[in-house]
Amino acid sequence: MTDSVLDHALLGLDRLQSDIAALVAAESVGADPARADGMEAARLLLENRLKGAGYSGITRLTPADGSGQPAIYAEQLDAPGAPTLLIYGHYDVQPPEPLDAWDSPAFALTERDGRLYGRGASDDKGPMLIALAALEAFLDVEGRLPVNVKLLLEGEEETGSPSLPGILDSHAELLAADAVLSADGGRWRADLVSLTTGSRGSAGFDISLTTAGKDLHSGRYGGAVPNALHAMARLLSSLHDAEGRIVVAGFLDGVALPTPEEAGAMAAIPFDEAAFFAPLGTVPYGEPGFSTLDRLWMRPTVEVNGMWGGHTGAGSKTVIAHQAHAKLTMRLVPGQDPKRAMEAVQAHLRAMTPAGAQLRIHSVRGLSAAYAVPDAHPLLAAASAALEATTGQHPVRVRMGATLPLTGQIHDALGIDTVMFSFSTSDEDYHAPNEFLRKSALPDGLAAWIDLLRRVGKQKTRDYGPYRTGRK
Amino acid sequence: MTDSVLDHALLGLDRLQSDIAALVAAESVGADPARADGMEAARLLLENRLKGAGYSGITRLTPADGSGQPAIYAEQLDAPGAPTLLIYGHYDVQPPEPLDAWDSPAFALTERDGRLYGRGASDDKGPMLIALAALEAFLDVEGRLPVNVKLLLEGEEETGSPSLPGILDSHAELLAADAVLSADGGRWRADLVSLTTGSRGSAGFDISLTTAGKDLHSGRYGGAVPNALHAMARLLSSLHDAEGRIVVAGFLDGVALPTPEEAGAMAAIPFDEAAFFAPLGTVPYGEPGFSTLDRLWMRPTVEVNGMWGGHTGAGSKTVIAHQAHAKLTMRLVPGQDPKRAMEAVQAHLRAMTPAGAQLRIHSVRGLSAAYAVPDAHPLLAAASAALEATTGQHPVRVRMGATLPLTGQIHDALGIDTVMFSFSTSDEDYHAPNEFLRKSALPDGLAAWIDLLRRVGKQKTRDYGPYRTGRK
Repeated sequence: MTDSVLDHALLGLDRLQSDIAALVAAESVGADPARADGMEAARLLLENRLKGAGYSGITRLTPADGSGQPAIYAEQLDAPGAPTLLIYGHYDVQPPEPLDAWDSPAFALTERDGRLYGRGASDDKGPMLIALAALEAFLDVEGRLPVNVKLLLEGEEETGSPSLPGILDSHAELLAADAVLSADGGRWRADLVSLTTGSRGSAGFDISLTTAGKDLHSGRYGGAVPNALHAMARLLSSLHDAEGRIVVAGFLDGVALPTPEEAGAMAAIPFDEAAFFAPLGTVPYGEPGFSTLDRLWMRPTVEVNGMWGGHTGAGSKTVIAHQAHAKLTMRLVPGQDPKRAMEAVQAHLRAMTPAGAQLRIHSVRGLSAAYAVPDAHPLLAAASAALEATTGQHPVRVRMGATLPLTGQIHDALGIDTVMFSFSTSDEDYHAPNEFLRKSALPDGLAAWIDLLRRVGKQKTRDYGPYRTGRK
Repeated sequence: MTDSVLDHALLGLDRLQSDIAALVAAESVGADPARADGMEAARLLLENRLKGAGYSGITRLTPADGSGQPAIYAEQLDAPGAPTLLIYGHYDVQPPEPLDAWDSPAFALTERDGRLYGRGASDDKGPMLIALAALEAFLDVEGRLPVNVKLLLEGEEETGSPSLPGILDSHAELLAADAVLSADGGRWRADLVSLTTGSRGSAGFDISLTTAGKDLHSGRYGGAVPNALHAMARLLSSLHDAEGRIVVAGFLDGVALPTPEEAGAMAAIPFDEAAFFAPLGTVPYGEPGFSTLDRLWMRPTVEVNGMWGGHTGAGSKTVIAHQAHAKLTMRLVPGQDPKRAMEAVQAHLRAMTPAGAQLRIHSVRGLSAAYAVPDAHPLLAAASAALEATTGQHPVRVRMGATLPLTGQIHDALGIDTVMFSFSTSDEDYHAPNEFLRKSALPDGLAAWIDLLRRVGKQKTRDYGPYRTGRK
């Protein structure tokens, strides 16, 4: 059985690839103030495209105070009675540094061995453009979409979505929908058809320690004054015990152990530990008494993402550093309140700050709770059926260790659930040099999106009623 | 009683200051390959000056293999029967970074409030040029020097003097002398006339930890893989206990506690702890059971001088770093063998490397033993008398916490002792931004050097015989 919409979409595969290349070329690194122009370039590319496709209501959304990187909104609401989906993607990307670790330029999409390399190719520019291309195929061939669609393309996902709660709050009526379908989130593995039904939350902040008014000569003063690097090493090493357990009082409050049902479902998931670790060049390491999947999906973390101080350049400089710095993030699981969990870590750090050092906690970012979509949600059922229809395999339901701030925030703000339907894959080195997207994600993704949109078009708004909880 | 040589020297004070400015302008940062031109510029300035003053035998000294930054040698040997002094200084300086922490340009000598600011002004370009100016005043006024002089101006002091043993070994006959008089080393305090009779040794190396083949996403993998920053924090914090004691097995082997005589002499030294710490913006911190002076002069250290890994730039990047790095130095005291002490630290680090991490130890540098000049040494006696004559105060004998690699190395290589006679002061922020030299050091230093050279001119080579031990 051929599908004229899919046929049309597949004829446009080359155009889709060049569209991804054009969007990757916009250096939309939200964390880097020097690349503000790249953020604006990405927005203009997307807005022009949505205009060309015939969307209405195209606008930029910010919190009421106008702060932050605006999200792009557009809508196509011509399927009366059918559900309304809020389709999510993000146009911002991770910093590409270190640039010299890339085998091809970070912002020039480069095809090698069936892979498309470039910053944002996988997270989330490629998957977002697959979704847009699937929607446009309906508009091109049928002149309308099978479901009502609202698009929300965010610009702060990689910096913890600080403005998203404000955007959702200020534009709750505009964004009202039956469910969210996310083009972000990532498939777990290339070798397994799966649906990701939950994600960890996150919180983060920076710390600085000061031990003196200036750097001091390590000969002249060494042994008689505190060293900020010693203090930082001691402070950071106090977060875990020698075996990798988090030893922060109160941090694990509310975290439940997996139920026998969850434990059974997880044990049934095909998982080759050796194959998982080999490409990472590392070994299993983590909280004793838990499996790798437990550690990734059901257990929270406190991680140091950056740490620096003193002389970090070439050669020797015999200083006692008077300041040291670190960046921390926590990954949170269901049961943890992000604010309380973060405050537990901060209280631990204050209590453990070594004598002679002053602690400053700053740059708090990205407070997001963990999230799980209800097992029987109609959009999840449709997504599962669409994947089975287009791949021939029944998708396994899995969780992800990473964070989609949107999921928890949208549930709080709009009272609806989110199904993740991205065609990136978790091994694609997003957040690292040489990020890539498998080229096969383009036709696979188009087929699945088109099938899913048709299925949801046959559902009714009322099917979603039991899952709409209203705003918090 | 006027001294025509001193009068002449003091008339040249402005020229001395402009000579210091010219040498500071040469960016002779030996640790920075990008500033190799600055090293050569400094050498050319000094060589031209020595030629103009009439020295003979001007040459560049390297180890037999020609490696490293050459030292400059010159001699003036026209005082038969008088002792021969090997006068030491160094023309290389510490890196000036961070440049934005300087109140005036690092390489432009700038006078403010009686101080001369600039990289190398205090360590060691200013004090070295004071010595050269004192010698030139004798040559100008009397046509000869009162003692036989050999000059050795090193270019690797700030990088641990890696070539110095080879230079001493290859040119032992050329450098043969009765004692070394060093224009490096620093006065302890501006408010106390003192002679520094001992220095700590040093050793240093870098370490790198690797935990994976690449940086990994902290959400996607967090909790199930090792984090190089956690491993580094744990490893570095294992070097000391929570109270600041070094807990490295074997490191303290051979270290003697101060004798009652030494303890008594140290207790008699006027030392205002509050006044010592206040300008540093820090508090006393170190090994329990020892005073600040004990900690600085009689106890060894293991210090981290730099530590880095992961995302250290602006904003957030949620990576698990796969590598972390640190730079370490040890300060050593009499009784410690530098190689054995360093190897004890390395063995500790290997033993304590956390599971999941690979340790690499590299960039070993600057193995120097601690040193103390014998109490009754004739050059020390002359130096003490010169300071008393020119200041009216009897100099207190003190030690220094920092390292002069020359002292131990020259004792091993040439069998002679070193007396430090620098007119820098230890609070002058060498090895930090805003290094300065007190302008009063110029006339004070000229007076003391001229007085000392006259006194040694009245001594005989045979007075030094008991202290010449021969080459090791």
